[in-house]
Amino acid sequence: MPSTHLFPDEPAETRIEILKATYGALCECGYADLTVERIGEHFPKSTSLIYHHYDGKDDLLLDFLSYLLEDFESRREMEDEADADERLAELLDWGLSPPPDEDAAALRDAMAELRAQAAADAEYRRHFDEHDELLIDGIETIVADGVESGVFREVDPRAVAETIHTVLTGAMLQGATTTTFDPAAIRDEIEAYVEGRLLGDEQ
Amino acid sequence: MPSTHLFPDEPAETRIEILKATYGALCECGYADLTVERIGEHFPKSTSLIYHHYDGKDDLLLDFLSYLLEDFESRREMEDEADADERLAELLDWGLSPPPDEDAAALRDAMAELRAQAAADAEYRRHFDEHDELLIDGIETIVADGVESGVFREVDPRAVAETIHTVLTGAMLQGATTTTFDPAAIRDEIEAYVEGRLLGDEQ
Repeated sequence: MPSTHLFPDEPAETRIEILKATYGALCECGYADLTVERIGEHFPKSTSLIYHHYDGKDDLLLDFLSYLLEDFESRREMEDEADADERLAELLDWGLSPPPDEDAAALRDAMAELRAQAAADAEYRRHFDEHDELLIDGIETIVADGVESGVFREVDPRAVAETIHTVLTGAMLQGATTTTFDPAAIRDEIEAYVEGRLLGDEQ
Repeated sequence: MPSTHLFPDEPAETRIEILKATYGALCECGYADLTVERIGEHFPKSTSLIYHHYDGKDDLLLDFLSYLLEDFESRREMEDEADADERLAELLDWGLSPPPDEDAAALRDAMAELRAQAAADAEYRRHFDEHDELLIDGIETIVADGVESGVFREVDPRAVAETIHTVLTGAMLQGATTTTFDPAAIRDEIEAYVEGRLLGDEQ
């Protein structure tokens, strides 16, 4: 099972134990081939306990996605007090770099598959509405802080945040679904946009 | 069955008849619920004829995707001789507008599902490598034409093309998988990027 900072080594709660097993199985076989039985192979207790907690694969995966958002929110609360331009550069580093290891690549691929479920499934769509709103809100806070502190020009923080989020979403999908996409190829252009739009002289 | 400019009203070839039926079924029920039987309901001849041409749902869908690319390429050859800045504006109009009708929205949603197959399936990944290369090449041609004719600044046409393609891919995915995304929200920012990067004064 892949080890990760996402989960404690020895989860105390059964829910977290099940979600950790889900993560392991998802990284191993992706969404399409995932079954509760496969998750059970990563779970130290009886598979029937998983059925006791969840109605099936998608019910469990939606809770897994919620857990990822909870984790993301708890990290945000611990955000350091760096300047807005540094925080934005860090975000672009994170979103426009190849995955650091195989598990991260496998999670990215699984996220692309899970997101596609939202095209036909209202429960998944509700999740990704919330997911995108949280991410856009996080970027918007950085941009608004930068405008307020005078590091950035007087831009519309929401519009800039939605644009950067769209770039990161496109980069994620291309990374997961092609062999040819290299996020480094667009990094200079995104920096030129940030520089011209946020850091440039007032027009 | 949805009518569309993608297919002739009365296809002469069986392949095109099958692909037209696939399009109708895909718009109706999406990828996950699609079966060869459902495609057969949109096909005026016997469903067994579909099995005679294709090994199954995914074999057929990969040929459907190839047909979309062939259609895209044949349109490109007919491209008008407008200036590069107008052609780029037209492309952004197309890629950053809500789908014009329900069939176009359904096709976008199905494309998001089909693309996600590439996260776990090498045949789909090969297709989307080719798909993205064709689209990026199309944008690159516009940018290079603009640089050559002096309408655009001396930029790297490939890097600009990959960036715009990433934005359009992200917009497509968010449109297909959330209820909240409005492509109009990022339009001004993308125009600011194009203006600052391609149309602005030399630095």
